[in-house]
Amino acid sequence: MIIDGMQYNKPNRERFLEWQAGGVGCVHVTIAIWEDARTTLSAIGEWNRLFEANADLVELATNGDDIDRICASGRTAVIYGFQDTSPIEDDLELIEIFHTLGVRIIQLTYNVQNRVAVGCWEDDDRGVSKFFGVNVIREMNKLGMVIDLSHCNEQTCLDTVEHSSRPVTITHGNPAEFVGQEIELKRRNRSLATIKRITEAGGLIGLSFYPKIMRDGSNCTLETFTEMVAWSAERLGVDAIAIGTDYYTGWPETKVEWFRTGRWSRESAIPLKSLAPWPTWFQNPSDFPNILEGLSQRGFSDEDVAKIVGGNWLKFFREGFSPEGAHETGFS
Amino acid sequence: MIIDGMQYNKPNRERFLEWQAGGVGCVHVTIAIWEDARTTLSAIGEWNRLFEANADLVELATNGDDIDRICASGRTAVIYGFQDTSPIEDDLELIEIFHTLGVRIIQLTYNVQNRVAVGCWEDDDRGVSKFFGVNVIREMNKLGMVIDLSHCNEQTCLDTVEHSSRPVTITHGNPAEFVGQEIELKRRNRSLATIKRITEAGGLIGLSFYPKIMRDGSNCTLETFTEMVAWSAERLGVDAIAIGTDYYTGWPETKVEWFRTGRWSRESAIPLKSLAPWPTWFQNPSDFPNILEGLSQRGFSDEDVAKIVGGNWLKFFREGFSPEGAHETGFS
Repeated sequence: MIIDGMQYNKPNRERFLEWQAGGVGCVHVTIAIWEDARTTLSAIGEWNRLFEANADLVELATNGDDIDRICASGRTAVIYGFQDTSPIEDDLELIEIFHTLGVRIIQLTYNVQNRVAVGCWEDDDRGVSKFFGVNVIREMNKLGMVIDLSHCNEQTCLDTVEHSSRPVTITHGNPAEFVGQEIELKRRNRSLATIKRITEAGGLIGLSFYPKIMRDGSNCTLETFTEMVAWSAERLGVDAIAIGTDYYTGWPETKVEWFRTGRWSRESAIPLKSLAPWPTWFQNPSDFPNILEGLSQRGFSDEDVAKIVGGNWLKFFREGFSPEGAHETGFS
Repeated sequence: MIIDGMQYNKPNRERFLEWQAGGVGCVHVTIAIWEDARTTLSAIGEWNRLFEANADLVELATNGDDIDRICASGRTAVIYGFQDTSPIEDDLELIEIFHTLGVRIIQLTYNVQNRVAVGCWEDDDRGVSKFFGVNVIREMNKLGMVIDLSHCNEQTCLDTVEHSSRPVTITHGNPAEFVGQEIELKRRNRSLATIKRITEAGGLIGLSFYPKIMRDGSNCTLETFTEMVAWSAERLGVDAIAIGTDYYTGWPETKVEWFRTGRWSRESAIPLKSLAPWPTWFQNPSDFPNILEGLSQRGFSDEDVAKIVGGNWLKFFREGFSPEGAHETGFS
């Protein structure tokens, strides 16, 4: 089973067909970044209609058994996620509300500081907030929601590992030491030491194809990518790594500007020039078979390839989406 | 003219009559803490009706001339303030919107961390956020809105002085070194060094009667309070100190719980036991003449008493409420 740890496309049938063509059995999709509670309800409403109109291709998944069942039917299981805590606004109770509506993954913050944590564009001198931040982590632990740290700063990652009673993840990011100096997004990748803290606590990292955070950007070869997978597997263990493409397409530039600035700035901290093209070997998710082949050529066994491209996520999501207590028994 | 730097009562005619009885010409009132944009619009709507029904006693003031005029008519000028940036949510544009609606003072955060800054209950390792926080300060500077730091942590105070092109204030707080160890609210008072940074940049501190942040609490005598005024005047200069009572009354315990926890916690970090009674010499704002007498007995000249109880605030508000550029000419 192929599982993609994170995509944020404008959702439509064309995307779902690409998933099917690539054999992608499960995708964690972003349904909100800066959206408030009310707007997020509408985003879920739009997905409800998409699921209805495309029931032959996709279905919402909220636990490990859902993923198994939907994938076995030849369709793609969709997992709802937020890339910021904006949808819960300032209200601890909204976490359970969105859990009931099917949301299973929340990134604590997207790039900047919010009420809960501090993002990777800010300095590293502070992480999770002492009151609301800790309360949010405990509530997500209790309900069985996965904490995503991809766009958080180093300190937020470390604080979260400390406060969380359950494993956490970077759904889409790369080790900074392998990628080397990035120019525009130099804080988006995490240090190996921090990634190690996350994976040693049972967490997972989804290695990403997003050109701006790969070595050599859009010119990164499949060989260089699989070299990063091998480099990571050597240091973190093959059970701790997976794929989170960060694939996104279909948005107008105004939407990309929204990702960058929300309502909190009038100009983007990163130039909004034309987006970096996806690498030749991954033009869209229908190219997933290329990755499997590349990993085999790199020397990974069939068993390890299966873990990296999906098996590790499935295990992690099955446990992570179980309510507190339940996950210890192995039942979801 | 007597000006009170901060009160947060349940507003009604009884309060307005106490102001008149005490000769209070101007009060900065809190109209929102954790309220979002929509709820804050309703709070302003409620005040509109109060102003209409009590036009013989109160009127909204948005600049120095308003304060002069309303006070000269024997009534009390009301200045709108927020004690947290919650009403602007995540939207830089809402600052101008609320400015148009008459709001002139915003405290960057109330006790905890928000998108803009870090409060006094959190640790001091981080202050103003690099993106939204700095943008908010610049926007308030431009429009002519006063930045209040009373419930912020030390680092937020220092960062704000650094980023703000205009003087800032602690509308209600005391110097920690004079008060000594506080138990429940030990972080609410600021260090003398930080207060000095604020006042040396042209800012003002409103010394407070709130029992829990005064030396000896509810048993603090008028003599001890005026001793703190003299202690502060000696270290900061008489032009840098004023009064911000923090007087509040009329709220049910559920509202006090709301102040403490908002929606971000299910329990208060500070026990919600019965509130500390106000000192005998300040049962409510009609007792303001006691303060004037106490300051005279302490040896302050009539001129200095006038500055401390209102003159310093009037000058500060006149300049602070003028749009950028205008304040340099002295015209509001």
